[in-house]
Amino acid sequence: MTARKRDINSINDLTNAEIEEIFSLTDEYLEMMWADRSRPQIPLRGRLREASGLILATLFYEPSTRTRLSFESAMIRLGGGTLGTTDSVNSSVVKGESIADTVRVIENYADLIVIRHKLSGAARVASEYASIPIINGGDGTHEHPTQTLCDLYTLRKELDKGHKQLRDATVLVIGDLKYGRTVHSLVYALARFGVNVITMPAKGFELPETVDRRLREEYGCISLTRGEISEVTEKLPLAQQVYLPLTRNLEPDLFSDRPGSKISIKGVLKKIDACYVTRLQDERLLGDEGLAKDYPIIDRNFLKGKHYTHTLVLHPLPRVGELGYDLDADPRALYFKQMAYSVPIRMALMAKVLGIRPFASHHEKGTDDKQPAPYVQREGLRCENASCVSGAERLYLSNKFLIVGASPVALRCQYCDQVVHPLFVGSIGAKTYSADLESIDPAQLGSKDIVFFANEVQAKEAGFRHGSAAARSHNSRVA
Amino acid sequence: MTARKRDINSINDLTNAEIEEIFSLTDEYLEMMWADRSRPQIPLRGRLREASGLILATLFYEPSTRTRLSFESAMIRLGGGTLGTTDSVNSSVVKGESIADTVRVIENYADLIVIRHKLSGAARVASEYASIPIINGGDGTHEHPTQTLCDLYTLRKELDKGHKQLRDATVLVIGDLKYGRTVHSLVYALARFGVNVITMPAKGFELPETVDRRLREEYGCISLTRGEISEVTEKLPLAQQVYLPLTRNLEPDLFSDRPGSKISIKGVLKKIDACYVTRLQDERLLGDEGLAKDYPIIDRNFLKGKHYTHTLVLHPLPRVGELGYDLDADPRALYFKQMAYSVPIRMALMAKVLGIRPFASHHEKGTDDKQPAPYVQREGLRCENASCVSGAERLYLSNKFLIVGASPVALRCQYCDQVVHPLFVGSIGAKTYSADLESIDPAQLGSKDIVFFANEVQAKEAGFRHGSAAARSHNSRVA
Amino acid sequence: MTARKRDINSINDLTNAEIEEIFSLTDEYLEMMWADRSRPQIPLRGRLREASGLILATLFYEPSTRTRLSFESAMIRLGGGTLGTTDSVNSSVVKGESIADTVRVIENYADLIVIRHKLSGAARVASEYASIPIINGGDGTHEHPTQTLCDLYTLRKELDKGHKQLRDATVLVIGDLKYGRTVHSLVYALARFGVNVITMPAKGFELPETVDRRLREEYGCISLTRGEISEVTEKLPLAQQVYLPLTRNLEPDLFSDRPGSKISIKGVLKKIDACYVTRLQDERLLGDEGLAKDYPIIDRNFLKGKHYTHTLVLHPLPRVGELGYDLDADPRALYFKQMAYSVPIRMALMAKVLGIRPFASHHEKGTDDKQPAPYVQREGLRCENASCVSGAERLYLSNKFLIVGASPVALRCQYCDQVVHPLFVGSIGAKTYSADLESIDPAQLGSKDIVFFANEVQAKEAGFRHGSAAARSHNSRVA
Repeated sequence: MTARKRDINSINDLTNAEIEEIFSLTDEYLEMMWADRSRPQIPLRGRLREASGLILATLFYEPSTRTRLSFESAMIRLGGGTLGTTDSVNSSVVKGESIADTVRVIENYADLIVIRHKLSGAARVASEYASIPIINGGDGTHEHPTQTLCDLYTLRKELDKGHKQLRDATVLVIGDLKYGRTVHSLVYALARFGVNVITMPAKGFELPETVDRRLREEYGCISLTRGEISEVTEKLPLAQQVYLPLTRNLEPDLFSDRPGSKISIKGVLKKIDACYVTRLQDERLLGDEGLAKDYPIIDRNFLKGKHYTHTLVLHPLPRVGELGYDLDADPRALYFKQMAYSVPIRMALMAKVLGIRPFASHHEKGTDDKQPAPYVQREGLRCENASCVSGAERLYLSNKFLIVGASPVALRCQYCDQVVHPLFVGSIGAKTYSADLESIDPAQLGSKDIVFFANEVQAKEAGFRHGSAAARSHNSRVA
Repeated sequence: MTARKRDINSINDLTNAEIEEIFSLTDEYLEMMWADRSRPQIPLRGRLREASGLILATLFYEPSTRTRLSFESAMIRLGGGTLGTTDSVNSSVVKGESIADTVRVIENYADLIVIRHKLSGAARVASEYASIPIINGGDGTHEHPTQTLCDLYTLRKELDKGHKQLRDATVLVIGDLKYGRTVHSLVYALARFGVNVITMPAKGFELPETVDRRLREEYGCISLTRGEISEVTEKLPLAQQVYLPLTRNLEPDLFSDRPGSKISIKGVLKKIDACYVTRLQDERLLGDEGLAKDYPIIDRNFLKGKHYTHTLVLHPLPRVGELGYDLDADPRALYFKQMAYSVPIRMALMAKVLGIRPFASHHEKGTDDKQPAPYVQREGLRCENASCVSGAERLYLSNKFLIVGASPVALRCQYCDQVVHPLFVGSIGAKTYSADLESIDPAQLGSKDIVFFANEVQAKEAGFRHGSAAARSHNSRVA
Repeated sequence: MTARKRDINSINDLTNAEIEEIFSLTDEYLEMMWADRSRPQIPLRGRLREASGLILATLFYEPSTRTRLSFESAMIRLGGGTLGTTDSVNSSVVKGESIADTVRVIENYADLIVIRHKLSGAARVASEYASIPIINGGDGTHEHPTQTLCDLYTLRKELDKGHKQLRDATVLVIGDLKYGRTVHSLVYALARFGVNVITMPAKGFELPETVDRRLREEYGCISLTRGEISEVTEKLPLAQQVYLPLTRNLEPDLFSDRPGSKISIKGVLKKIDACYVTRLQDERLLGDEGLAKDYPIIDRNFLKGKHYTHTLVLHPLPRVGELGYDLDADPRALYFKQMAYSVPIRMALMAKVLGIRPFASHHEKGTDDKQPAPYVQREGLRCENASCVSGAERLYLSNKFLIVGASPVALRCQYCDQVVHPLFVGSIGAKTYSADLESIDPAQLGSKDIVFFANEVQAKEAGFRHGSAAARSHNSRVA
């Protein structure tokens, strides 16, 4: 009970083993509560009292049907209470209250907060300031980890009916991959569970650089470009990128078509197990509205090709035209089933996070042991992402990054995950800065003396003067 | 438990026997839970747990105080939980989600949905797509059946104190009878329970044609016009229409004034047992704002006439000027009692619909055995009501009518109940159309080959050519 | 159970003994439910069922995070249910419903109503018309009594740690004392518990005349002006007024600095036990926006003076700049603790008001036995406060005052507490009025024949003619 609280800001805050635990508990709740597992909604078999006396607060700065209601329904089904804060939150915003203050207020009224916000990293800010667990219900264009739990559970369950495992599957991700936060959480999870991911973005809505980079660098994917794909097949003319997780036993000759126990790239591209369709996140467009006219539409016509014969169709809903109503009665349509699982999966997640059904598996971060070094400074380099929470809440937030590259120096914002490349480096002790980033010993990058700057103006505004002291200084004072 | 779900879109979805069952259960809840039956609010005697574990979702596309809160209160009093979706719903609307998709989402979070919408027929759409029961909490200008249950229960209970039955009563319905959806549900119910109905509409706000027609044609009312009324009495100068249910034993000479066991029209007009006042539905006006200035005001002055001495005053609230505050302390004022009964009546309705206290009486539709034939087509004739849901949700809805007249052909929209008269008829098989509606054998009107058109443009746009094939074709292929 | 309902419109609706009872019950709930009394939020020890079956309705005409959510959380923690009415209320406002009608509706759905409204006196109106208890959750610029319970409880608890009692303490109240309703309730409570109050208003945001007057006249405070303060000390250059409750044993020579068992004014000004900071209520400004630029900012810099060494900092939150983030980690900062106590204190208040844990102490009004005489008339003198509820709800409300002064005649509005001085007096019986207010025998001021007027136009509009009858008339007909 006195253990450190668990916050779920990213799907990567859960290990694969923990995700499996959540899925098992979901199975258990389905078995206990609903008569028909494929249609969990009617009729209820029993009532749980596990969360009796506990309160969920939904702190939604953006409107929501699905996420808020499914969390609230899950809490009521668990026997607990809920506090709806939608209009309250708007009231705080109007009165000019910071996220940090708001969560330090709400923590007194509830035992768990689910937060949704239009700025990337807002859930992270909440988790830093609240003394109770925070679950990210969608933050800007960043992530939506609980939607991914629903998506992955549904996909796994359905593949299982065809005796297929996640690690043998190929998923096509379609639509707005740039602003679609559900997509970002999903592709990390797919990669981590060994699923091949093919992207088919609407033109101009490709995966953000930072997601692409993490898939390759952190989650060990081999990435093939559009050109390499079209060399192998003409069947997916709109496919843009393929990510092959290294956990798979890949053919020595990736591009061969020889059948066998090992997977060939041609085999991967031949059969699509599922396609994950997303709507255009038009409330987040930053000047790229013009592109939306060529947005792909997935309907029975699109799916008439041979490689789509058994393709499961997932969509986080709501749809606004990109998903045909003619698919609703199609056996391949899985999107209403996704909805049906959203309550039991969130029951399981909350039961775990609240410690009602504690995680058995030892918590280890991600799939990788070596963690990048943190960089935290009040002055200097800032996140350059206009929709990052660190801008709006600058008054009390430090600039927090992870050092993800040394040559060139690359820092990933701890709030929104966007990567920034500083051009100048300074020494806090010497109050000098220079452009000589190469001179820094990579092992010293995490030194507390080091401060980065995007440009000289920023360095001067912070009271630093040009000089060579930077490199020397931090060499002498290790953090 | 596996029985077909019950949806309450119209007061006519409940038989008289079922309404009586709901009223008996309301009596029982009042007895069990509240100490003073005439003031159910304080204090509570006990707590029910009948709906423990069940969840009500209120899906309100229009704001509401009374309906939403009394349903939520009723569910909590029954021991269940509630999900409030007001702002969520707006979020879905903003994102462009259809009613069909929204209810297929919400059905996963709850066990029962109460829906309110600004378009007529929205509850019907919800009930077609949701797998859980739907209750209409007010749809456009169409109906508001649960308000009618409160109204009728209150009226019956109060008449009972004077040893009078519904079937011996006369009710004056005053105000906006055109857009007032509570009025539409109420007059059907009054007619079905044998109550004489006198209408006193604000000028320009008469009962819609379709309601008038159904009162006469389906619910067996004799209708007297303003002229016929004024021949008999000068006492009700503003009365416009009288509906006398045929279930009553009417005098052979309706217009006599002879006292006796049978009812005379003069007797009906002499004594008003209750008047039902409604506010102007100014949020629904379609260009008739100018008329509102002569809206009738019911206060102590209005009720000083002799035939109003014992007239009970009902009003669904809120009032905005048409009901005097000087009546609040008047013993004839019943409107706060209506409010007081709204929670136990909705507890009873939900307990029935959820199967907690299943209906004992065999469900039979309305008072009439012969049901009109349905007409369903994707193309052709559309409902012409601007506030019918079938327009806004055309993308996935068919044009659904009931064939309520053969000569001339009359179709009543299954969503909003408005009647439309097509001018052309076509044959799906022959792809031809003609104006020759008279040639269709009435028995063949329900044929699946028949498609109606409002005009020639509509027929041509659907790819039909002029020809005589229509009549012949459908004669040869009976549905 | 059948006892008269308790409404909490003002902090002065609770006696000191009752406030002590609420504080004791708060202690008990903290002990029972939370493991760590200083951080009540985590983890919960147990669950109460005391309010099982009871429903709280929050009737919020203004948005709110803290007040609404802490009440709802408190009700859920007590085992009861909640009805959120925020958007519903807006719906009623849009439809033009009066407060009286709305509460007579809501009373049927709940067992207790917490109301917030932008007009002063709205809670009083609600309590006059509802048959269930009403708690004021903030009414215009008038009062916010439940915030004061949190503030006072926190202050008392923290002083107790330093073995100090409320009656030995001095509190500095800073910021918007004009529109800050939390301040108004607080200074009454502080005075009644013997706390010295020093005001430090932002320029132009001084305590309203009526609050100042009541502190002196009803709650027995000696008041020192800015000049008198600066004679004694230069340390508080911004202090404007000092209120010294007469319950204290004051030095014969108030201005001496001699140490001893009795308090000297110099001693009072030397050490500030707590400062209560408030934000500018910018949503309530009536043309005094220009003044806001000099609003005091309380941060570590402000508190570096010697007399602030141990000053506890309270703030009802949200802050918008007047309270530095640099104080958050400062041991003097109490504002998050105020939040932490807000749930148990409201649990205790509701348990008392609902009769779950009935008040043991005999209810006696305020600290004073002689109550001012009431004055109630439909016509004549009106409250002149633009934000008083009696204006907006004039249709059904009488003009209700208390006669708080005889020479000159002073009437305090029973809704908003603002004082008005009539210039004319009339006799209802004689239908005459005159300016001769001095001629009225003070003992007759409460006569039902007397009607006051602000000016002659008002008297004439009410149908009164000039004459000397007024004084004579009321002398002959005593109420």
